[in-house]
Amino acid sequence: MWKSVIILSVTSLAAVETALGDLIEVIRGTKKTIDVCVFTISCRDLAQELVNLHENGVVVRIITDGESINAMGSQIGTFRSAGIQVRHNRSSFFMHHKFVLIDNAVVINGSFNWTMQAVTGNHENLLITNNMNICNPYEEEFTKLWALYAPINLTN
Amino acid sequence: MWKSVIILSVTSLAAVETALGDLIEVIRGTKKTIDVCVFTISCRDLAQELVNLHENGVVVRIITDGESINAMGSQIGTFRSAGIQVRHNRSSFFMHHKFVLIDNAVVINGSFNWTMQAVTGNHENLLITNNMNICNPYEEEFTKLWALYAPINLTN
Repeated sequence: MWKSVIILSVTSLAAVETALGDLIEVIRGTKKTIDVCVFTISCRDLAQELVNLHENGVVVRIITDGESINAMGSQIGTFRSAGIQVRHNRSSFFMHHKFVLIDNAVVINGSFNWTMQAVTGNHENLLITNNMNICNPYEEEFTKLWALYAPINLTN
Repeated sequence: MWKSVIILSVTSLAAVETALGDLIEVIRGTKKTIDVCVFTISCRDLAQELVNLHENGVVVRIITDGESINAMGSQIGTFRSAGIQVRHNRSSFFMHHKFVLIDNAVVINGSFNWTMQAVTGNHENLLITNNMNICNPYEEEFTKLWALYAPINLTN
């Protein structure tokens, strides 16, 4: 089983809106849990979708890169203000993943950071699948990093 | 059908070597064509694998980001010296894909740029699959960008 591939390339504004709309539709379909493991998150529209899910009782967990938190337009403050847990690395190397797990049953991976540049200008791809053989290693990676980046494990 | 997911995370040097080894094994399995569409390529070991394939008669085509060509350690010069065709965008936006198509039958996608930092330090993931429903849209995207970035279409 598989679901679909989204290619974001600025062939037209309509194509971009369709691609972003497809991604948002998948995110809105979350029933219980969404685990977001994305290097940079600065796109307000996508951030708002997570806040909405959180307010509707979905368990939202976010892992991102420690340096990207301070990047212009970062939405991490928005998440924390809303009461969503965010964890991050403190290494000079990157937490460079760009994947999302929905209800432990669908994985979205690819080149796509959650930035306006990625949405409106870059060439990007997203693969969306519900193949459990693919979901499982992403779930294991999220679980590992979530524990690794627990506040109790972070020292300055 | 699917093949495997490679997670690169520096848990140990051995784990990194295994992950890189697994990727190289897939690349070495190329029979006729390999289409590489990767934002940044500066890892010498991976670049050498493409040169070896080219010298053994495999058709190697590379699309990369125009700005990354000038980044430190870029292997684009190596490819061009070896006679491998490389095409790139000239936009301020990124050609941000990180996917590879092998024999139009296997696709590798994920967060992974071909850099030493990605290999030795970052948290990264690669999904490898031979599901044709997944391969086809990546093949279409490569074909589209290859034509778009043909030298005849580039103006200064």
